[in-house]
Amino acid sequence: MASRTYAVATSSPMPILPPGLEKRGPGREVERGMNGNGDARFDVLGIGNAIVDVLAQVTEDFLARHGLVKGAMRLIDEVEAHDLYQALGPTIEVSGGSAANTIAGVASFGARAAFIGKVRDDELGEIFAHDIRSVGVHFETPPATEGPTTARCLVLVTPDGERTMNTWLGASQNLSPDDVDEDLVKDSRITYLEGYLFDPPHAKKAFRKAARVAREAGRKVALTLSDSFCVDRHREDFLELIRNQVDILFANEAEIRALYQVSNFNDAMHAVQEDCPLAVLTRSAAGSVIVEGGDDVHVIEAFPVRKVVDATGAGDLFAAGFLAGHTQGRPVAECARMGALAAGEIIQQMGARAIRPFHEVARENGF
Amino acid sequence: MASRTYAVATSSPMPILPPGLEKRGPGREVERGMNGNGDARFDVLGIGNAIVDVLAQVTEDFLARHGLVKGAMRLIDEVEAHDLYQALGPTIEVSGGSAANTIAGVASFGARAAFIGKVRDDELGEIFAHDIRSVGVHFETPPATEGPTTARCLVLVTPDGERTMNTWLGASQNLSPDDVDEDLVKDSRITYLEGYLFDPPHAKKAFRKAARVAREAGRKVALTLSDSFCVDRHREDFLELIRNQVDILFANEAEIRALYQVSNFNDAMHAVQEDCPLAVLTRSAAGSVIVEGGDDVHVIEAFPVRKVVDATGAGDLFAAGFLAGHTQGRPVAECARMGALAAGEIIQQMGARAIRPFHEVARENGF
Repeated sequence: MASRTYAVATSSPMPILPPGLEKRGPGREVERGMNGNGDARFDVLGIGNAIVDVLAQVTEDFLARHGLVKGAMRLIDEVEAHDLYQALGPTIEVSGGSAANTIAGVASFGARAAFIGKVRDDELGEIFAHDIRSVGVHFETPPATEGPTTARCLVLVTPDGERTMNTWLGASQNLSPDDVDEDLVKDSRITYLEGYLFDPPHAKKAFRKAARVAREAGRKVALTLSDSFCVDRHREDFLELIRNQVDILFANEAEIRALYQVSNFNDAMHAVQEDCPLAVLTRSAAGSVIVEGGDDVHVIEAFPVRKVVDATGAGDLFAAGFLAGHTQGRPVAECARMGALAAGEIIQQMGARAIRPFHEVARENGF
Repeated sequence: MASRTYAVATSSPMPILPPGLEKRGPGREVERGMNGNGDARFDVLGIGNAIVDVLAQVTEDFLARHGLVKGAMRLIDEVEAHDLYQALGPTIEVSGGSAANTIAGVASFGARAAFIGKVRDDELGEIFAHDIRSVGVHFETPPATEGPTTARCLVLVTPDGERTMNTWLGASQNLSPDDVDEDLVKDSRITYLEGYLFDPPHAKKAFRKAARVAREAGRKVALTLSDSFCVDRHREDFLELIRNQVDILFANEAEIRALYQVSNFNDAMHAVQEDCPLAVLTRSAAGSVIVEGGDDVHVIEAFPVRKVVDATGAGDLFAAGFLAGHTQGRPVAECARMGALAAGEIIQQMGARAIRPFHEVARENGF
């Protein structure tokens, strides 16, 4: 499951680094962003729904017939999940989950990463656990031994590469505060939370506990708004959280406008400047805008891609690249370029988990 | 799981139909191949292992470290399946199984298709059943309610697109003669059997029953040799079957050479001319050779492809295209071109189940 989508318009190659900003080796100085905190065991801990994506190609007609809003995520119950699945053609199963995709990406960039999320002790749960551990992520949340099966998201990919998501939360909704290992949160420089967790009541409590523990330990809290409809469902809670506990906010244009209920991106950008020390705002083909310290605004271009195969995970992987750069102490503009790189890479393949390690992709692109 | 691999060398487009052989509309005459038998409910019934493929990208080094023979299929037990899986990076799950891939392809070309194979009543079993039914295949083999889980094949894809398969047969090995519905066999114009079924003893009995029932009902029997190591394991049984019960034989170069224990393709071709009325021999980049009626030999070029992404299913889909054409009454050379088209299409995507319906691909290519 992905949180955001980027259609990338630029078709000719562009330099990744602006003139004057040379490539630096491993011995580079930490300038800004993360510093100190070298005592932490993990760079980034993600907490989110643990989901396996079920991808199918559909026509625009199929979306219309089923009354689905293209590009959005909606929650469905088990019966609807079954019925919709039966209506689909052949599928591909790939591990997903918004924060899980981000964390797998962070690890793939070479950062030390951990994840908390709830699967069941079934086959899809095993697949989820395997895939996230296989890129080096620490994942030890005990699977549920009863109750609903591992969550799945029916991801409908239209010929334009856009994805429309239908999520049956399954075991994921039973993530509880007990699953949030306090020591793990304290031992992570950034705790990254997905907004989708606000949907299931137990998970929301787990979310709040994690944010509190992280703040009390002097760690950073990052949040992704996940989806504009999710923002509509939980606007006041999100605003309160952002104003009091969030150090880094990730949102796309639709989400940040939904948060502040404004029709104009600039108005939303000015509003978030008041509320959060670092906001990473993504704008599909128009690239991204980073609002830092209430003053600095950086506008970063989208990364050129040949063809959007499947937009699933674009937003999640933008966050991954950004966070990976941030934990390396890079300036925010450079972090955003790493995010754009990762997003551009993931939309050229099926699914939201990178087939090729990002540290290789980054190296090839001069990071 | 795929039976064979085609590396396709031709890089420039080539005409599908040779000069003089015009494209014909739906009202075309049935000339050769299948005729009569209009009473049958199904064009092709496939019987094979019911497997979910677990695809992972690996390096050449990984194969060497694990002592794996590139391009081959080997059977592994549950413990080894677990250990090898743990050593893999992120995976993609897609329905597979050699005959199952073929039958899904046959249906995707628009033919009436059915499949017999054994899954368990678990999540991967549901995925397998969904995917094969979703392209219109009749699949009603009751899933096992106890015993091993649904079979899986760890498909290791190297950067050259070649695949190396490691199969844990799971529930598949419990396919029994009782699962072979005699009425279904009698009601199918062709019964297509995969050689891999000779490995599990129960399945071998099911295989023999299906061949016998089909022959007694005056239907055709088709066989794919599956893998050269599989041929080595069951050579005498295969030869006896081919000489007495097989109407259409599918094999790649390594398999047909293994069958006759000859080092030269031509020798193998001459040997099979004596043994089988119609042999479809595939030769990777060198295309295919169809030996018909003991006399006619047709040499067909491979279909040009841009890049081999994953060779999984190439042989299976060649058989699908050939069988689909054959049930439409097309001349064998045209059937082989349909096979080449399907094989060329499948190696340009991950997994052995076509994302796009083959009847569309066929139409676009003048069939």
